Amino acid sequence: MNKEEFIQLLQDKKYKTAQNILSEMNDMDTAAFLEELDAKECALAFRLISKEKAANVFSCMSSKMQTYLVDMFSETELKELLDDLYMDDTVDMLEDLPANLVTRILKNLDSNKRSTINKLLKYPEDSAGSIMTTEYVTLKKTMTVKQAMNHIKDIGIHKETIYTCYVTESKKLIGIVTAKSLMTSDDDENITNLMNTNIISVHTHTDQEQVAHLFRKYDLIAMPVLDSDGCLVGIVTFDDAMDVMVDETNEDISRMAAMEPNEKTYFETTVWQQAKHRILWLLVLMFSATITGSIITRYENAFSAVPLLVSFIPMLMDTGGNCGSQSSTLIIRGLALGEIHFKEIFKVMFKEFRISLVVGFILAAANGLRIFIQYQNFNIAIVVALSLMVVVIVAKLIGCILPLFANKIGVDPAIMASPLITTIVDTCSILVYFNIAVHVFNIVV
Amino acid sequence: MNKEEFIQLLQDKKYKTAQNILSEMNDMDTAAFLEELDAKECALAFRLISKEKAANVFSCMSSKMQTYLVDMFSETELKELLDDLYMDDTVDMLEDLPANLVTRILKNLDSNKRSTINKLLKYPEDSAGSIMTTEYVTLKKTMTVKQAMNHIKDIGIHKETIYTCYVTESKKLIGIVTAKSLMTSDDDENITNLMNTNIISVHTHTDQEQVAHLFRKYDLIAMPVLDSDGCLVGIVTFDDAMDVMVDETNEDISRMAAMEPNEKTYFETTVWQQAKHRILWLLVLMFSATITGSIITRYENAFSAVPLLVSFIPMLMDTGGNCGSQSSTLIIRGLALGEIHFKEIFKVMFKEFRISLVVGFILAAANGLRIFIQYQNFNIAIVVALSLMVVVIVAKLIGCILPLFANKIGVDPAIMASPLITTIVDTCSILVYFNIAVHVFNIVV
Repeated sequence: MNKEEFIQLLQDKKYKTAQNILSEMNDMDTAAFLEELDAKECALAFRLISKEKAANVFSCMSSKMQTYLVDMFSETELKELLDDLYMDDTVDMLEDLPANLVTRILKNLDSNKRSTINKLLKYPEDSAGSIMTTEYVTLKKTMTVKQAMNHIKDIGIHKETIYTCYVTESKKLIGIVTAKSLMTSDDDENITNLMNTNIISVHTHTDQEQVAHLFRKYDLIAMPVLDSDGCLVGIVTFDDAMDVMVDETNEDISRMAAMEPNEKTYFETTVWQQAKHRILWLLVLMFSATITGSIITRYENAFSAVPLLVSFIPMLMDTGGNCGSQSSTLIIRGLALGEIHFKEIFKVMFKEFRISLVVGFILAAANGLRIFIQYQNFNIAIVVALSLMVVVIVAKLIGCILPLFANKIGVDPAIMASPLITTIVDTCSILVYFNIAVHVFNIVV
Repeated sequence: MNKEEFIQLLQDKKYKTAQNILSEMNDMDTAAFLEELDAKECALAFRLISKEKAANVFSCMSSKMQTYLVDMFSETELKELLDDLYMDDTVDMLEDLPANLVTRILKNLDSNKRSTINKLLKYPEDSAGSIMTTEYVTLKKTMTVKQAMNHIKDIGIHKETIYTCYVTESKKLIGIVTAKSLMTSDDDENITNLMNTNIISVHTHTDQEQVAHLFRKYDLIAMPVLDSDGCLVGIVTFDDAMDVMVDETNEDISRMAAMEPNEKTYFETTVWQQAKHRILWLLVLMFSATITGSIITRYENAFSAVPLLVSFIPMLMDTGGNCGSQSSTLIIRGLALGEIHFKEIFKVMFKEFRISLVVGFILAAANGLRIFIQYQNFNIAIVVALSLMVVVIVAKLIGCILPLFANKIGVDPAIMASPLITTIVDTCSILVYFNIAVHVFNIVV
């Protein structure tokens, strides 16, 4: 179905046909399709979607379109929508909506739903509490499978995930029963015998990245979230955990490329926003790079004596930068995936040192040989080869130490990534290079 | 429970106690714990694990330990283990096991399980077929909910996921029923009325990255895999999709830092392997960087006339490199997440061009001003500012074009990332810089 045909249908008031077309698409595709229409058409088309489907489609939409729709809705429409919307989706929406609409929405929520949402909104950003939903199935340990199944049948349809049920005793979480074990056990089997009492859970303030790790480590569908008293207050579902993983990775990657992280997609971000996200680090790095420059000027006599020296500056700088970012990238990634910890810093340094010996030797030999053959100048060959060796070692050590320390003092290690390390390594490279040169050619500086 | 105490228990033959300790840990932690023991103790401890749990624990272990255990097992032990092991886990294991053990395992599988495994092993690496499992629940559309539930009860316990059931007609997939709708519908409800006929599926040869995208886009727990005739041959489960996502990202990130991708963790990889993964690109980039050097030598007169020129080389190179990698990173990420496509190349170029105007102007102004104040030299200020402006524009364009073309011709765009682009941009920067300088100072080259 293409956009134009659909718009035509709307204009010809062929609503029934339009309705059928929408009902055949899945929620995500419907949302994407409606996004393509202009706002008025979208609002019209949205009203054609069946009540059961509407809420899901809505939660798949961009906040821009959500804002517009909420603005268009009558009180009754809004109420209907909010009744079917999952808690966490409602919160996501509220976080992006303009204040006047937020108040309008909160007004339309029944009191206890409102209080829950207010609670959810209060959790710190990037905490388990901020991504959890309060809709889950709880069972009593005294229930039988039959009773449990009936209980789920009664209330399950409104719950976001029913595949992991939580056995609670005076609000405390005492066990977990999977839908699988319910479905594959006899009706009169007792929940106590089915429930798994060794529970993996997080607290409302646990960092969402940590939550995502646990999901991956234990292949969970949902994770219970406990408050400070160990009472069950919500669950995080696997789809939200997946999103967290992707967002956190995007953040790291942007930082590693010297940009401010940005949750929107490339085309969603305006030119000005893009520029804003990039300029800060560029300025910082540009000015720190001038340090390297001013060092060079101190060795003016060196390169006026041996002008050829200048031509190896780019090669040394780039190689140093690349070696440094190789190490920093591995360390940053290792930290992000929880494979490397600060206490292992010496283990890491020793490893990077040995690696840099191997790598440095090969690079030095290869380039030294090339220079000797090309220029028949043994001294230059020695200077460059020696410098390369030292630069590689220094670069790899800086590349592994900085991210580890950043992580230790609670700064995102990704900040310490390639560009920053490149700039630092540059300075070292130039210093090493000219010092060696000055000695080999015994130039007076 | 710490390692030493546990080893003590084994030595004192307190097997019952050891058994209880293990039974209280979840599968993943048990595996991690056993990995810490030395091989003999591990084998001993593994035998203490309850039969139901053993297979899961085994599938959580490193291939190194799996190999050792399989080697130790008696035929009966091996048979028991293989009976409980999921198809996809068995395949994963076989892919890492030495040939002699593989044959031994295949010998111990019953004929039809063996044939399935052989089929699975034949699928191309990184294809949906290679990560799918052949264990899933199929239903007939004529069944009622009650019948379906009984069917699941009978066979479900052996299936990896029972939360999405597949309605088939002569092997063709005609609909999907979630466990949720089964659990929340009346017993006499008919499957035909419950099943969702608009199915999201992949083919055995679909790339696993593509599969992971669909999982994220549609928040799936499992995805049906069809063969060329549209017959259901397996399913991919969400946990495998999550792993794919992480692996693919790691690959991109390593490539973006000029390293060969590597599936092992940092500490699992030996110094030699690490060096091997890093050296190739370093050599390539080192030698391409010498081009920049040789260009510099062509402008010897320039910097012997105005030595100050040399001191701005690092700043220009770094800034160009950073601008280029900012763009390439965003494009590479966008391509990986399916947010950017080759057909949008002009849209991207135009956007990057406008961004580079903004960014370039700010950088040029800031630095030009600084130089004028610091050196009271208007010409130098102009030369550097102009060069910066041009370099930023060139860098951003190269940074967005190269990855898009790489992707177009089927090369991983991540290869075109920061380091390579930096090297290319360097050359341009130097050329631009000295050409402008030569004209402003009208130096004869």
